[in-house]
Amino acid sequence: MRVLIRGVAVIPKPEVGVIPKADVVIEGRRYAAVVVGEEVSGPFDKIVEGEGKLLIPGLVNAHTHLAMTLFRGLAQDRPLMDWLEKEVWPREKKLTGEIVRWFSLLGLVEMIRCGTTAFADMYFFMEEVGEAVEKAGVRALLSYGIIAPTPERIEPELKKAESFVREWDGEAEGRIRAAFSPHAPYTCGPEVWKRTVSLAKELRVPIHTHLSETKEEVERFRAKEGRSPVEWLEELGVFGVHTLAAHGVHLSEKDIEILAAHNVHVAHCPTSNLKLACGIAPVVEMLRTGVNVCLGTDGAGSAGDLNMVEEMRLAALLAKVKTGDPQALPAAEALGLATWRGAAALGWGKELGTIEPGRRADGVIIRLDRAHLLPNYDLLANLVYAAQGSEVETVFVDGHFLLLEGEMQTLDEEEILGRCRELAKKFK
Amino acid sequence: MRVLIRGVAVIPKPEVGVIPKADVVIEGRRYAAVVVGEEVSGPFDKIVEGEGKLLIPGLVNAHTHLAMTLFRGLAQDRPLMDWLEKEVWPREKKLTGEIVRWFSLLGLVEMIRCGTTAFADMYFFMEEVGEAVEKAGVRALLSYGIIAPTPERIEPELKKAESFVREWDGEAEGRIRAAFSPHAPYTCGPEVWKRTVSLAKELRVPIHTHLSETKEEVERFRAKEGRSPVEWLEELGVFGVHTLAAHGVHLSEKDIEILAAHNVHVAHCPTSNLKLACGIAPVVEMLRTGVNVCLGTDGAGSAGDLNMVEEMRLAALLAKVKTGDPQALPAAEALGLATWRGAAALGWGKELGTIEPGRRADGVIIRLDRAHLLPNYDLLANLVYAAQGSEVETVFVDGHFLLLEGEMQTLDEEEILGRCRELAKKFK
Repeated sequence: MRVLIRGVAVIPKPEVGVIPKADVVIEGRRYAAVVVGEEVSGPFDKIVEGEGKLLIPGLVNAHTHLAMTLFRGLAQDRPLMDWLEKEVWPREKKLTGEIVRWFSLLGLVEMIRCGTTAFADMYFFMEEVGEAVEKAGVRALLSYGIIAPTPERIEPELKKAESFVREWDGEAEGRIRAAFSPHAPYTCGPEVWKRTVSLAKELRVPIHTHLSETKEEVERFRAKEGRSPVEWLEELGVFGVHTLAAHGVHLSEKDIEILAAHNVHVAHCPTSNLKLACGIAPVVEMLRTGVNVCLGTDGAGSAGDLNMVEEMRLAALLAKVKTGDPQALPAAEALGLATWRGAAALGWGKELGTIEPGRRADGVIIRLDRAHLLPNYDLLANLVYAAQGSEVETVFVDGHFLLLEGEMQTLDEEEILGRCRELAKKFK
Repeated sequence: MRVLIRGVAVIPKPEVGVIPKADVVIEGRRYAAVVVGEEVSGPFDKIVEGEGKLLIPGLVNAHTHLAMTLFRGLAQDRPLMDWLEKEVWPREKKLTGEIVRWFSLLGLVEMIRCGTTAFADMYFFMEEVGEAVEKAGVRALLSYGIIAPTPERIEPELKKAESFVREWDGEAEGRIRAAFSPHAPYTCGPEVWKRTVSLAKELRVPIHTHLSETKEEVERFRAKEGRSPVEWLEELGVFGVHTLAAHGVHLSEKDIEILAAHNVHVAHCPTSNLKLACGIAPVVEMLRTGVNVCLGTDGAGSAGDLNMVEEMRLAALLAKVKTGDPQALPAAEALGLATWRGAAALGWGKELGTIEPGRRADGVIIRLDRAHLLPNYDLLANLVYAAQGSEVETVFVDGHFLLLEGEMQTLDEEEILGRCRELAKKFK
């Protein structure tokens, strides 16, 4: 399959900026060429007209709980523990594989329509999530969330996590990778972490966890363990494995140095962190120290949506008010967080994240004929500071189209919306 | 003209929440009835099907500089003064009435498409803005921005401002009201303020200004005048006039008490305040003290866009991180900021802002058949935490349709986008 995207504006990677007009050639699963000012020679199996549109690398949502779309809008504006204990956990007991599948599909429709091509997910019934991902055609790092508050929970939880990794890592023609996910340092003891680390090393997969999300959590942890969660994980040898840690809101200078030294990837989740009043992560400081910071939405239950265009904008805006510097995290860097840095965090750094010959053909085409995207002095700035997500018109992964000129290609959107509407009634 | 919006979900005002299904009747320029569980009797000149959609009061953008869409995306991520001095001001010297008209129309297309039905604007060439507003069919409080750094500028500036008010207040069948806009306490001396106050009293119009936007501005003002800008304006008697003040980021407790005591309306502009690294306004504290806080986008040149749905969400999110309380500014209050509080701030508090019989028929119909708006446990929470703005399908003001099922009714969108594309080339 040879595809031409003709006469499109392209941001191949953030530091290159905008190429106003190019022909982009895809061969099979990879980008073959970005041609400017020359004829490209066919034949092509498919030609997509790019005139007046913008092509960017696929967006990477580096932290979510996909099926929690089930809880969107449920008992909002509540304190986290109150919301979890009274609303979410009792309902999660009623979860079934079927529910997780349909609400994962709902989340996938939402994500694809806003330009997300890859994501990292941690939840339950992960086989169902895997099947949804396979069907949708996106790319994902999937993991079963291990929570072992009592010793007798350790074996069954590890077994579930291990069998998921053994079964799913590398599936869907390599679009799915698996990880281990001890939920957090405060919900899993040293035994879980040590055994996870040796399993992750044995099976050569990453760890995806939550880290230092709230002030209270970090303070309680320090009071109990005499060190920060980051220091504690380092001592346990966790960071010897490729680690993706979500949030990183409350970090000391020393924590940030440890994360940088061990190449830990931090998924900044700005909407969720604001909504739950957790705080604003020190993104600029982490980047300056050498931490690879990427972006995630967190679950739609807490964050409201799975819109990475919004997360980019919010990351760029918050960095400015956090540092007091309007030059902090400019648009190009915000796009980097959402693309190549996310790809690296999910373990696809050499394969994805930019539009260059030889890289996997994951990309997003955005309509520019919208009042809020004019003038076009700087399409990159407009993308970060003005686009909504709904301008996404075409999305492809590995050269396959998931959304084409506004039409879903791999999923039956109407059926998914209808089923989710019905199924949600039981959870109100 | 008698219009029926049939079988629609309605949020008549935030504290009522969502009525799942109602028939809404408009007679002429006003809402006539919101009917639940009963037949409504015709005939109707027009029936809009509301099944699966949500009707909310029109959104009010209480602070913008509409024609600054011309500067969207221009030299972004720069310090404010650097951006103004090197980029904006030299280009503003090249402004003409024609430029202001077309880029006002561009901003109007953007605003209408995101559900804004009324706004407060302060800029130059305001006659052209007035004509654009008249044509578009929206509602606006318009004012010429007075900047008088030297004494000889006072007379011509006041003359311009006064003639605009005399000519335009009450125009477009009352949809346009005019105001006086001394730009800010630090750009206009006591003479300007005093003369403006007596003119505003004489002509019975409000004042719309900028107030305490940056820390440096407030500190410099205090050093020079020995009091805060708010105290200074109070002493000058400005607050004897209905005042709409944009920003209010850096306010003392005493300032907030003064604003509350004099019923000063504060337009919170969260995106702009983050993007320029100004800070986060004390919205919850102001509301608690009794200040009427509303919402604005500020100009698209600094803020990136004119999307009030995003401003609602951002206001709700920032209030939580500012106070450390996830219950702060819940969704219903955020919607209040964007609707009835904005209407009150613009001087239409008794006429607009809610969907009730006798009120002006300004409203917005939103499509709900979107993955990111499901499930529908709480449409109000989904509106604030998940909607993008692009779901807005129908918009009406005074019972006249400006956007109908996705089609602009009063403006030639294609022509406007085309002209603005051309005209912008001179400003790159």
